[in-house]
Amino acid sequence: MAQVPKRQMAQIIYNVGGPVKYEEIDVQEPAADEVLVNIKFSGVCHTDLHAVNGDWPLPTKLPLVGGHEGAGVVVARGELVKDVEIGDHVGVKWINGSCLSCDFCQRSDEPLCSKALLSGYTVDGSFQQYCIAKAAHVARLHKDIPLDAVSPVLCAGITVYKGLKESGARPGQTVAIVGAGGGLGSLAQQYARAMGLKTIAIDTGDAKAAMCKELGSYAFVDFAKSKDVVKDVQAATPDGLGPHAVILVAVNEKPFQQAAEYVRPRGTVVCIGLPAGAYLRAPVFDSVIRMITIKGSYVGNRHDTSEALEFYRQGLIKAPYKVVGLSELQMVYDKMVAGDIAGRYVLDTSR
Amino acid sequence: MAQVPKRQMAQIIYNVGGPVKYEEIDVQEPAADEVLVNIKFSGVCHTDLHAVNGDWPLPTKLPLVGGHEGAGVVVARGELVKDVEIGDHVGVKWINGSCLSCDFCQRSDEPLCSKALLSGYTVDGSFQQYCIAKAAHVARLHKDIPLDAVSPVLCAGITVYKGLKESGARPGQTVAIVGAGGGLGSLAQQYARAMGLKTIAIDTGDAKAAMCKELGSYAFVDFAKSKDVVKDVQAATPDGLGPHAVILVAVNEKPFQQAAEYVRPRGTVVCIGLPAGAYLRAPVFDSVIRMITIKGSYVGNRHDTSEALEFYRQGLIKAPYKVVGLSELQMVYDKMVAGDIAGRYVLDTSR
Amino acid sequence: MAQVPKRQMAQIIYNVGGPVKYEEIDVQEPAADEVLVNIKFSGVCHTDLHAVNGDWPLPTKLPLVGGHEGAGVVVARGELVKDVEIGDHVGVKWINGSCLSCDFCQRSDEPLCSKALLSGYTVDGSFQQYCIAKAAHVARLHKDIPLDAVSPVLCAGITVYKGLKESGARPGQTVAIVGAGGGLGSLAQQYARAMGLKTIAIDTGDAKAAMCKELGSYAFVDFAKSKDVVKDVQAATPDGLGPHAVILVAVNEKPFQQAAEYVRPRGTVVCIGLPAGAYLRAPVFDSVIRMITIKGSYVGNRHDTSEALEFYRQGLIKAPYKVVGLSELQMVYDKMVAGDIAGRYVLDTSR
Amino acid sequence: MAQVPKRQMAQIIYNVGGPVKYEEIDVQEPAADEVLVNIKFSGVCHTDLHAVNGDWPLPTKLPLVGGHEGAGVVVARGELVKDVEIGDHVGVKWINGSCLSCDFCQRSDEPLCSKALLSGYTVDGSFQQYCIAKAAHVARLHKDIPLDAVSPVLCAGITVYKGLKESGARPGQTVAIVGAGGGLGSLAQQYARAMGLKTIAIDTGDAKAAMCKELGSYAFVDFAKSKDVVKDVQAATPDGLGPHAVILVAVNEKPFQQAAEYVRPRGTVVCIGLPAGAYLRAPVFDSVIRMITIKGSYVGNRHDTSEALEFYRQGLIKAPYKVVGLSELQMVYDKMVAGDIAGRYVLDTSR
Repeated sequence: MAQVPKRQMAQIIYNVGGPVKYEEIDVQEPAADEVLVNIKFSGVCHTDLHAVNGDWPLPTKLPLVGGHEGAGVVVARGELVKDVEIGDHVGVKWINGSCLSCDFCQRSDEPLCSKALLSGYTVDGSFQQYCIAKAAHVARLHKDIPLDAVSPVLCAGITVYKGLKESGARPGQTVAIVGAGGGLGSLAQQYARAMGLKTIAIDTGDAKAAMCKELGSYAFVDFAKSKDVVKDVQAATPDGLGPHAVILVAVNEKPFQQAAEYVRPRGTVVCIGLPAGAYLRAPVFDSVIRMITIKGSYVGNRHDTSEALEFYRQGLIKAPYKVVGLSELQMVYDKMVAGDIAGRYVLDTSR
Repeated sequence: MAQVPKRQMAQIIYNVGGPVKYEEIDVQEPAADEVLVNIKFSGVCHTDLHAVNGDWPLPTKLPLVGGHEGAGVVVARGELVKDVEIGDHVGVKWINGSCLSCDFCQRSDEPLCSKALLSGYTVDGSFQQYCIAKAAHVARLHKDIPLDAVSPVLCAGITVYKGLKESGARPGQTVAIVGAGGGLGSLAQQYARAMGLKTIAIDTGDAKAAMCKELGSYAFVDFAKSKDVVKDVQAATPDGLGPHAVILVAVNEKPFQQAAEYVRPRGTVVCIGLPAGAYLRAPVFDSVIRMITIKGSYVGNRHDTSEALEFYRQGLIKAPYKVVGLSELQMVYDKMVAGDIAGRYVLDTSR
Repeated sequence: MAQVPKRQMAQIIYNVGGPVKYEEIDVQEPAADEVLVNIKFSGVCHTDLHAVNGDWPLPTKLPLVGGHEGAGVVVARGELVKDVEIGDHVGVKWINGSCLSCDFCQRSDEPLCSKALLSGYTVDGSFQQYCIAKAAHVARLHKDIPLDAVSPVLCAGITVYKGLKESGARPGQTVAIVGAGGGLGSLAQQYARAMGLKTIAIDTGDAKAAMCKELGSYAFVDFAKSKDVVKDVQAATPDGLGPHAVILVAVNEKPFQQAAEYVRPRGTVVCIGLPAGAYLRAPVFDSVIRMITIKGSYVGNRHDTSEALEFYRQGLIKAPYKVVGLSELQMVYDKMVAGDIAGRYVLDTSR
Repeated sequence: MAQVPKRQMAQIIYNVGGPVKYEEIDVQEPAADEVLVNIKFSGVCHTDLHAVNGDWPLPTKLPLVGGHEGAGVVVARGELVKDVEIGDHVGVKWINGSCLSCDFCQRSDEPLCSKALLSGYTVDGSFQQYCIAKAAHVARLHKDIPLDAVSPVLCAGITVYKGLKESGARPGQTVAIVGAGGGLGSLAQQYARAMGLKTIAIDTGDAKAAMCKELGSYAFVDFAKSKDVVKDVQAATPDGLGPHAVILVAVNEKPFQQAAEYVRPRGTVVCIGLPAGAYLRAPVFDSVIRMITIKGSYVGNRHDTSEALEFYRQGLIKAPYKVVGLSELQMVYDKMVAGDIAGRYVLDTSR
């Protein structure tokens, strides 16, 4: 078994707004119910940029090591930990830990726990070589899963899978994916197909149209070219009554309001994306008469995580990514700010 | 068996805006799948006033006999009708008929049928002595149910019962009723109690507070006196986390927006009331992070109707009402316009 | 439009035990809520043989025209029928009609209606050229669906699809199919795959093993060769805890008792097959401690029918069959009795 | 704060078959995730007698301190325990602890955890003055709940409440309780009423009939006097179609087989009681055609526990009991063996 070093490299935020600094810091020791994970790869998510910028309603810890899509190997564990072994492959995800006892944890809604620890936000995350996580919360990874490729699935994949479950759509039914051409959207299309759902992709541009067809969507509505998005989406469903569910992973507000118009009577609009300052808005009369449901879906719980990863392990889900060194994190943020990213960046913590 | 007359008295709307005219008209004959009901009593609902005024997005038939809370006796039936007997007591409700074959009817969502016939709106309703209805849709009434008292239950009662079912709240959980002191609200409190739910009543004024306590609500929040309705509603729940569901039967817009703030994480806000031109509105971030559901609930289906009536039959539901003659309908509308009504008016069709 | 003839050819049972006689009889006229269907093809199901032999607890009408997998074209309709057009392609299935008003019909459980009409059992069925059915109950068939190939799906396909829905298994979960190599079993595997489920096939023989692998089952347990079926089925699941659900389409009793042993804790055993005189049997202690559910699943309702046919239309379901003339029905029964049938026989009513 | 002593009195089983010995033993210290509870009162359950006699399939630890209905005060806690305070009132119930990480724990089915610790069975229980329990699993008790009265609720109450939830019966529906006159049965009737369910009590004898009427059951079927239990139970339902669910808390086998006959089509039979060596048995044909569900329900999870206790706290549930000293436990067992017990015995650990 590899020795655990005392010191390690990490990317640290000292002040709101950043920048991140690549420095040597101490390796922590796990408490009785924790594991220490040697992070091999960590995906970079837009949420990490929000953590740097401090522009979400919830404040971060400072100084902070960001990151919540870490994949690695368990190198130490506390004395109460019995179901994770040294050498196991695990993922460190957004929910780093929760109380496991409150009303929400008791009902498997750990993401709603008021004491939930958030990786790379309220506790140090995966942008370091050795990261602490609650043993009950690390995602178990089969050893045939490549640690670099799976890292984006640990956040984006689980989140869209959860949203699809929350939609209540059943195999054979139709789901519209708004923002289908983005990272979350492309994962959503793949998970939907694996779940027996038919998808209508909504986004703009011929490149995205082509990609969505390849990912299995049977229809594409270009919101920029369409003269009437509501009509076009409904027309794309076999009986013209609209999709049974809509998954919103777009990053602006307008689609949040159109969806309630084209969703099928009795259908469900699931909000996942978090456009800053956006509002859900729907006319009461129409929502009542058509019995529409609008709901928010946050990240998956531990069971959703394990299900989402099993779909991945079976080869049903692909997420394009590019590996750079942990030391290059600031460059990734710069590209994000510039809107200059296609696919996910994954950091190799060894360099 | 009583002879069915050829002519009868009815209240007729000839033009948008009214007035209603009390006149003698022909009695219709039922088609093969219809029954002819000798209406004994009919409740008057705000929706009837909307039908007169034509101020809803959906146009009415003209000339029109209004009314959709009719209780009476079957006096004739079409040749295909086998499960309703001459002499049976039945209710004519908002959904007069539906295709029974479309995607929605097949799943017991007849109110969503695009061919649904609406009593007193798209077909003549219960403000006449003899009314036609589809046999499959009339509400079956046990003969020990008084026809005058039950008439308001046929619309308001069923609607709030449906909303409570749609909320997903389980026995022992807490539901906030917004607009608790009104007609729908007082029925909602009674149905909730019969269903094992605990209720927080939200309305204003000491008289309403007293009434709500009597109807079994364990807490009352006066939205006019409260300095912070959100905080007060949450504080009224045993663990301070907010009610599991909120039932909105208020007639103005503001409560539709507050409810999403005080409902418990994972909770459901059910919209029933239809304030003209109102919008649902909720911040995306908060709705996602707290996994809130907002949904519209329309009228009950046939099965909800039968369940709601069974609660009534057992004496668990009381709806205060005042009987006047069918000939006095315009007076009732005038009072409604003047806001001068407490409890429900029920019309006796014999005078 | 083709003229409807007065006389037609049909296969008639005059006495319990048969034989069936191929004779000319009158064409019936549809009542107000019925359609007359020119049957083009009709599958032959084991249930039809039970109808001949009268060996089920429920007596048939006599004389009887059997058949409940009829696919054809609407040639006449009653005056109340508005949503089926002359020329539409439709299926006549086991449930020919129901009251559409009882407690069960109101909740979309038409197969449980005590007044349900059963095609080829309590009313004349599809082994004739022109068959009567209630318009609300005929299966709607897209015109790109071949009428011969779809006929076996109308009974067997819908039934296994219903069973899979009843199992509660969700996409990604594992379902064991007992009797996987038979007609129902091979359809069950295909529907399961289309619904995102993983299947373990249970049957015997190398030919069936090969077929099941082809149909997408990731594991095959040969109940005749296995030394411990319970252990082998559980070992075939990723975590060794057993499948989430078991679908029983076998025709003997033993598998009905083993399934409760190998199903996962909290899992569901769904009984579909009807071995004569068989009993479900499970130890109380084990069933309670492991929280096992055992349930019966009958045929699909109208909505299940439409969903199951949509999977078929998309090309996700294949059912091997062989076409012979309607006049050859007795030969098909003889082969059934002799156990000499692979795949389904479909009758061409034109010969 | 009271000092925790080093030694305490306990009732110990050294050999299968007993007897229990009242002796002084060491007080244990809680591990990091455990609490030490000063048990004030502990109910005695038939399961405790099974633990003494070793007649269940699952072996006990030996020597063993029995008891799993302990109510007391937290006097010490491990360093990881943050949500239970010294001085809190808690209950030690059948599930003493579980891994909180496995597939079942992740879905709130802790009773199905293969590593679950069972109080008074696989770990020492509440028949001692100071008992260890996992902090995440102790039942939280409001301080206005009397510790003696609540102790029987901690096992029997939670178990029947769970069974009623598992039945899927909704407010207004009818549930038959088989064995209604016993301890579980009387609690089941009370919980059912609090949940808005109507109950038919099934048991024998006029005393039990009277008691069941008092507990709110609207009908009583005396299985010893009835000539046809199936017919009588169905006749007791408003429409004669049978109860929506059946709760089996009887201690012999026969009712387990009758229930499937009289339950309503689409109804659910829930097995809770554990007659030694009993089998569920139901005809396949009838179960399929009527779409019956039969399921086992074990003890409640942590959330069920908290819900069941909240009903109790509101005064909706009463369980008759008699207090004797912990030192008298053998006498209680002797009475149990003799069948000489009415209501529950509760042990006062101070004597």
